[in-house]
Amino acid sequence: MAVNLIEPQSLLPVEGVRLASVASGIKKNQAKDLVLIELAQGSSCAAVFTQNKFCAAPVTVAKKHLAAFSPRYLLINSGNANAGTGERGMQDAYESCALVAKQSGCLAEEVLPFSTGVIGENLPLTKFEDAMPAVYSTLSENNWIDVGRGIMTTDTKLKGISRQLEIQNKTITITGLAKGAGMIQPNMATMLSYIATDAVISNDLLQACLKQAVELSFNSITVDSDTSTNDACVLMATAKAGNTEITHKDADYKKIFDVICEVSLYLAQAIIRDAEGATKFVALQVDKANSIEDARQVAYTVAHSPLVKTALFASDPNWGRILAAVGRAGVDFDIDKIQIYIDDVCIVSNGGRDAAYTEEQGQKVMSQSEITIRIELQTGDQSACIWTSDLSYDYVKINSEYRS
Amino acid sequence: MAVNLIEPQSLLPVEGVRLASVASGIKKNQAKDLVLIELAQGSSCAAVFTQNKFCAAPVTVAKKHLAAFSPRYLLINSGNANAGTGERGMQDAYESCALVAKQSGCLAEEVLPFSTGVIGENLPLTKFEDAMPAVYSTLSENNWIDVGRGIMTTDTKLKGISRQLEIQNKTITITGLAKGAGMIQPNMATMLSYIATDAVISNDLLQACLKQAVELSFNSITVDSDTSTNDACVLMATAKAGNTEITHKDADYKKIFDVICEVSLYLAQAIIRDAEGATKFVALQVDKANSIEDARQVAYTVAHSPLVKTALFASDPNWGRILAAVGRAGVDFDIDKIQIYIDDVCIVSNGGRDAAYTEEQGQKVMSQSEITIRIELQTGDQSACIWTSDLSYDYVKINSEYRS
Repeated sequence: MAVNLIEPQSLLPVEGVRLASVASGIKKNQAKDLVLIELAQGSSCAAVFTQNKFCAAPVTVAKKHLAAFSPRYLLINSGNANAGTGERGMQDAYESCALVAKQSGCLAEEVLPFSTGVIGENLPLTKFEDAMPAVYSTLSENNWIDVGRGIMTTDTKLKGISRQLEIQNKTITITGLAKGAGMIQPNMATMLSYIATDAVISNDLLQACLKQAVELSFNSITVDSDTSTNDACVLMATAKAGNTEITHKDADYKKIFDVICEVSLYLAQAIIRDAEGATKFVALQVDKANSIEDARQVAYTVAHSPLVKTALFASDPNWGRILAAVGRAGVDFDIDKIQIYIDDVCIVSNGGRDAAYTEEQGQKVMSQSEITIRIELQTGDQSACIWTSDLSYDYVKINSEYRS
Repeated sequence: MAVNLIEPQSLLPVEGVRLASVASGIKKNQAKDLVLIELAQGSSCAAVFTQNKFCAAPVTVAKKHLAAFSPRYLLINSGNANAGTGERGMQDAYESCALVAKQSGCLAEEVLPFSTGVIGENLPLTKFEDAMPAVYSTLSENNWIDVGRGIMTTDTKLKGISRQLEIQNKTITITGLAKGAGMIQPNMATMLSYIATDAVISNDLLQACLKQAVELSFNSITVDSDTSTNDACVLMATAKAGNTEITHKDADYKKIFDVICEVSLYLAQAIIRDAEGATKFVALQVDKANSIEDARQVAYTVAHSPLVKTALFASDPNWGRILAAVGRAGVDFDIDKIQIYIDDVCIVSNGGRDAAYTEEQGQKVMSQSEITIRIELQTGDQSACIWTSDLSYDYVKINSEYRS
């Protein structure tokens, strides 16, 4: 079902990161559902988390642990979100960290917990306990693909990417994973994404780098406007690459930042390509806006319109629905000046259908699996781009049968 | 498909209102699609219109005519929205008024035009011209049901209601019609609604009455968050009932206002009951909020959540989705204090699933065709209620096949 998304056959190991994935029995069918990631001593870790007020217990615990200690382990389970679970959920999240501490000899506060899956059910801690020796004993640098599968829920494809670059004659490796297909309008982060590099880089810069990369990638996608309770994106740096520590936004930082942006964008777009029920991959590009906020407001209004999304599913060039969504976005513009395009076909100008537009042109673009809807507001020089999917029968099917 | 919506078998005539409906050929299958409403000399007319910036040409013309003259005729077509049609659309809207003027002998400026249907196609004016003698010559006080059908598009049921009340020993009659099933989050008005009374009431009070009634009814519903380009709601008063003119918000005004609110709410809820693909009629009641704005913000966030809507369709008590939507509404509250109910079953308290909640209780409520989701924010004493529908296969089907 995924739109032009190919699974990676292999991912590059990142020195200083060992990881493993096992089937603990949370998911049915013996699918992998429990992941442990180990960071070498001296690693740095930056993270951004969901803005949902009902954030899950592991999010609260991870934030607290991250503020106090440098993490040595990330413990991630899929199949159960440990969200909406109140005080018991908090205890379970702490206890899951304690299980890793007991197994590895680290402090419980050196463990970051993450959960994704059904909201409102208690974490089956005995399954964690039973699986802990197996996941710990299989830690290896070469398990990225397995771990990518271990964090999946309704995802149909593994989402991962590796890139390398050179700085100071040293090779820097960056490998990232993400999961997510529904309940996707990340607000500070996506469902779950883990990106690791062996670069030597200061903690402050690592956090700044992640925050900016996320803004341009995970914070610019939407499937269904629903911000999850469990969103988290983690950027880890193991400091094994041998470069001199990067402490300023210099040319070396810029090089690394660009590749981390590329990795983040690939993973964020992979989530949209694999969005629940998706048959289209759609970019909403808003140009010549008064502000980035205006541009994003218009882009999100169009991206969330169920009528635009069903027209995309039908490959129907029903451009009136795009025009109507732009018109209700609550952003100021002159309807006689704005222009709307699908790919390079102008559909709206002078307050109505472009004089040269033909239904055949529109049909041709709308039949593609990848479409750019571009809106020129003519109120300034700011731009924004977000990515979204269509609304199909399968979206309804997947989400009405999710718990059955 | 409509949820507990019964078509009226008859509607009461309102003295001073004659109306008619014919099949002009805009819709296929010889369905009625052109409506003329005539108001007796001395009638008043109040109206509210869409806030969509891309408002349709007839909306612009109707506003202009209403500001200059007391309307004698309303001309309404279904099947074509005359929206996104630029300068040509404006000319067509003016020309349609001129056709009524020519037929009836009134001024073109005494005609209000309304259109609903597909966006972006030019109005077939020759069909209007050909049908004008037939629609004019069949004007009668007894055609409310026919006219209700003439304004329908994807509606599956006629929406109309009549009520009577006594003031000053005179009987006041109120009859209202509405249409709308998709592209519904009215903002000042619904798709189209026409309410007439024979009461004698000042113009200013009539407009105030309509504005307040709409706020509590048509402006409190949503199917899919898409505000139409053509929304309009018109309240007409023919001054034939023989009561002394109402010029202040006195007891008589209050009586009429209450019934107009009742009629508006019935019609607004009828739109939700007949929402595209609807299998559920859902009230979102937010209580103990800091402000009405906060309450509405939370209610609309839950109502628009595709995940909540698909869970409703599936009759799945997946209360975690409701909790997640409340958490992302951008409204301040203490998650340990708020409570969420479906009907009288408490699902969330103390930051998680209510201790006494059972899946059986949730399943029982979610299996009903009418459900109230009630959220107590515990931040103040303000309330708001909005109404919405679920998201079904049929919503996708109707909207992906709309133009085919």
